[in-house]
Amino acid sequence: MRNKVRTGGEQVSELTAGRLSVYLRCLNTLDAAGVKTVSSRTLAEQFHLNAAQIRKDLAYFGEFGVRGVGYYVRELKRHLRLILGLDRTVRVAIVGAGNLGLALADYPGFRQEGFEIAALFDAEQEKVGRKSRGGVRIVDMSEFRKLVKRDSIDIVVLAVPASASQDVANAAVAAGIRAILNFSPGTLKVPPGVKLKNVDLTVSLESLSFFLARGESGDDEEA
Amino acid sequence: MRNKVRTGGEQVSELTAGRLSVYLRCLNTLDAAGVKTVSSRTLAEQFHLNAAQIRKDLAYFGEFGVRGVGYYVRELKRHLRLILGLDRTVRVAIVGAGNLGLALADYPGFRQEGFEIAALFDAEQEKVGRKSRGGVRIVDMSEFRKLVKRDSIDIVVLAVPASASQDVANAAVAAGIRAILNFSPGTLKVPPGVKLKNVDLTVSLESLSFFLARGESGDDEEA
Repeated sequence: MRNKVRTGGEQVSELTAGRLSVYLRCLNTLDAAGVKTVSSRTLAEQFHLNAAQIRKDLAYFGEFGVRGVGYYVRELKRHLRLILGLDRTVRVAIVGAGNLGLALADYPGFRQEGFEIAALFDAEQEKVGRKSRGGVRIVDMSEFRKLVKRDSIDIVVLAVPASASQDVANAAVAAGIRAILNFSPGTLKVPPGVKLKNVDLTVSLESLSFFLARGESGDDEEA
Repeated sequence: MRNKVRTGGEQVSELTAGRLSVYLRCLNTLDAAGVKTVSSRTLAEQFHLNAAQIRKDLAYFGEFGVRGVGYYVRELKRHLRLILGLDRTVRVAIVGAGNLGLALADYPGFRQEGFEIAALFDAEQEKVGRKSRGGVRIVDMSEFRKLVKRDSIDIVVLAVPASASQDVANAAVAAGIRAILNFSPGTLKVPPGVKLKNVDLTVSLESLSFFLARGESGDDEEA
């Protein structure tokens, strides 16, 4: 553990982590607009969140709110970044320099939050040596293990076809990686001690389809 | 409302919709492996879900389980597809034919679940007339309103730079669109009656950073 954040001996759920991340996004918006303090109620109303849930999530990590004031936006941002492990640069390598890998390499939100996309890897020789529009170099997959160690990569992102994803996951694990973000369809196996997060973009589209089918509406923030 | 699914007078939360979508993804995997029946417990163990939550989510929509058997995989799939509004083709238009838009146009999961990517729109003339690798044609943005109506588009996906996203959202609303999936950073405004879902890919990366910082592990499925 790098940070001294309260853990209380319990596992904090994936959902909590996702919500803290959403709160940080909202605080960034408020900070950019020059807002100095915010109450959980205002935060909830403005961003379609749940005020009681915000207070509960934040109280778990310490006393951040001030009675009659709410939260100091910048201070809470700093705390959330610490809790989320963003108080230092998190180094990311993306495997697969297709459209998705290129889009992720240049995704504006990553850089803004302190993630550094160190390299894009691909096995196709004609892609090697090129760069993404944002300037991330495409490196031969044969260099993967060496560069993951040399550049102290923290997280590997898989943006390869489903047929290649398990092999690449295995290579990442063999190179000492402990966190994998997988955009490929299908189920991957990783050993205990390695954190795998699967992103299935179909889920977002289906929740819209669900609401269209039910005739409901109202906007929301992704959790 | 197109489907006669039980609503019970309550709003079913976004999170429930997301979980139903994850269950459908798991059932697809089981069905592809030839599995005929599954209990909530087995489903939970195999895909790192919560058995009580599965039973609660499904019970809300009707009686799908059979005592001593569990759920019939294909029957439950059919029910979930009905609840999620996937019993008919859902027509999708993507705006922005950059790397992200091209990646989304060819995303394998969409087609598999009955989404049809009808067109990719872009304002750059040099892209118009080309096709994505998967064969989705790129159409001039000036045709947007006409084609959205003619092709009965249900959902518009925004994969444009942040500076353009509000204008495109407005154009979608003006064309009669009631569901928007937004991949652009920043906050969009849509009128009541229009469902907006924001996807922020930073959230997935931050939850891995969070776990690395806390020294926890264990894989999970995206909800």
